[in-house]
Amino acid sequence: MENGGKRVRPILALGAAQAVNPAVEAAALDYLGCAIEMLHTYSLVHDDLPAMDDDDLRRGRPSCHKAFDEATAILVGDGLQARAFELISLAPHMSAQQRLDIVRTLASGVGFSGMVGGQGMDIAAVNTAAPLDTLQTMHALKTGALIRASLVCGGIAAGANDLQLTALDSFGGHIGLTFQIVDDILDVTGDTATLGKTQGKDQQANKPTYVSLMGLAGAKEEAKRLHLAAMDSLDVFGESAELLRELADYIVNRSH
Amino acid sequence: MENGGKRVRPILALGAAQAVNPAVEAAALDYLGCAIEMLHTYSLVHDDLPAMDDDDLRRGRPSCHKAFDEATAILVGDGLQARAFELISLAPHMSAQQRLDIVRTLASGVGFSGMVGGQGMDIAAVNTAAPLDTLQTMHALKTGALIRASLVCGGIAAGANDLQLTALDSFGGHIGLTFQIVDDILDVTGDTATLGKTQGKDQQANKPTYVSLMGLAGAKEEAKRLHLAAMDSLDVFGESAELLRELADYIVNRSH
Repeated sequence: MENGGKRVRPILALGAAQAVNPAVEAAALDYLGCAIEMLHTYSLVHDDLPAMDDDDLRRGRPSCHKAFDEATAILVGDGLQARAFELISLAPHMSAQQRLDIVRTLASGVGFSGMVGGQGMDIAAVNTAAPLDTLQTMHALKTGALIRASLVCGGIAAGANDLQLTALDSFGGHIGLTFQIVDDILDVTGDTATLGKTQGKDQQANKPTYVSLMGLAGAKEEAKRLHLAAMDSLDVFGESAELLRELADYIVNRSH
Repeated sequence: MENGGKRVRPILALGAAQAVNPAVEAAALDYLGCAIEMLHTYSLVHDDLPAMDDDDLRRGRPSCHKAFDEATAILVGDGLQARAFELISLAPHMSAQQRLDIVRTLASGVGFSGMVGGQGMDIAAVNTAAPLDTLQTMHALKTGALIRASLVCGGIAAGANDLQLTALDSFGGHIGLTFQIVDDILDVTGDTATLGKTQGKDQQANKPTYVSLMGLAGAKEEAKRLHLAAMDSLDVFGESAELLRELADYIVNRSH
């Protein structure tokens, strides 16, 4: 948890809350932000397992099952997921209904119809010639669902109305796919030291990626197009969405 | 989920609810019962993994990673945990505060300070001469925490007061240890066909058990003593706790 992650998802939640209500202070989102980062971290720990993506490096250091052992990594992931929902149930500054809406949104985002479902599709896609729409559905679930849920939960915490929640969800859908396409691009163009994870991993595993399906130039074009669509989703907010716009720029321009 | 489990924990939740309010109907506990059984099933699927207890049989059939593969088993467990919390957030017949109290109780029961922590202690105890009090703490977490949480959540669903919740928690602590001691006894005296899992597994793994530490007769005496203590915990309820008393009898007398 303290291994130097980028904290993109908690910051997206904060950006969403401030888009809805600029007076929201970062501290009011602490429990939500920690819970979201725990869910993300649990997914990384399990994805790195030998039976899954079998990755020895994470955030520039040995992944959990390398630093400890497989049983520990399985239990760490399991416990982080439980702790995330416990934290939400204890979050201050929110009504019981808000906290319950967040539990529902996050649980759905990380479950069979979200992150876990996408990871299952990802593993099934190794060594197959999955077409582009399958790849998009897989990423929309694997990476996109928790990003969307993080934004929607930030909105819920700030008392967003349905129109605002829909806008945040749409922004999340676009930015989530952008994030994944940039990941695929960096897997080809980045280096292991900057990435903090093994470069060329997806190619090596013979997984279909945006780059393998659209070419490097095509993938870069698609990232730009989705970035613009994400910006359009924020029109309903005006200036209060400045942090979200900065985050969208960061996601498309990042080098790791 | 439909593989013929005994459904002990959902039935304990129902028993607790009916102890608090005899008018509670079983259908009102459907979401809670399913969520509890999903959490229990996820723990079995992960515990059976090669990196954990490495068990090929569960409920008389191939365990999840044998019937499918390890990646699937990891994801099935992960998804079941998420789905459990999602179900609680959607449960009808309860206020937002009740559902939130249940999320907190279950998350704490299955997390680092409960079930996951106990499983970690269990794995660490293999090939060690763990003393009796370590064994008791381990089982209180690994098996006991979810049993206690199931009872407390049944109470919460029925609107229990603090005195009643404390009684249910105490009953759960006693009955949970009884359950584990009977498990250890059956691991020695049962047969694989009746148990639906591999007999002699704990001995083979050189794990400390109640039988190895207290002898078969000593373990049976301890189960009887805890059974009586569990019954005493129910005095506050009178006749409405009849289902819980029957369950306690079943747990101490079961053959699998």
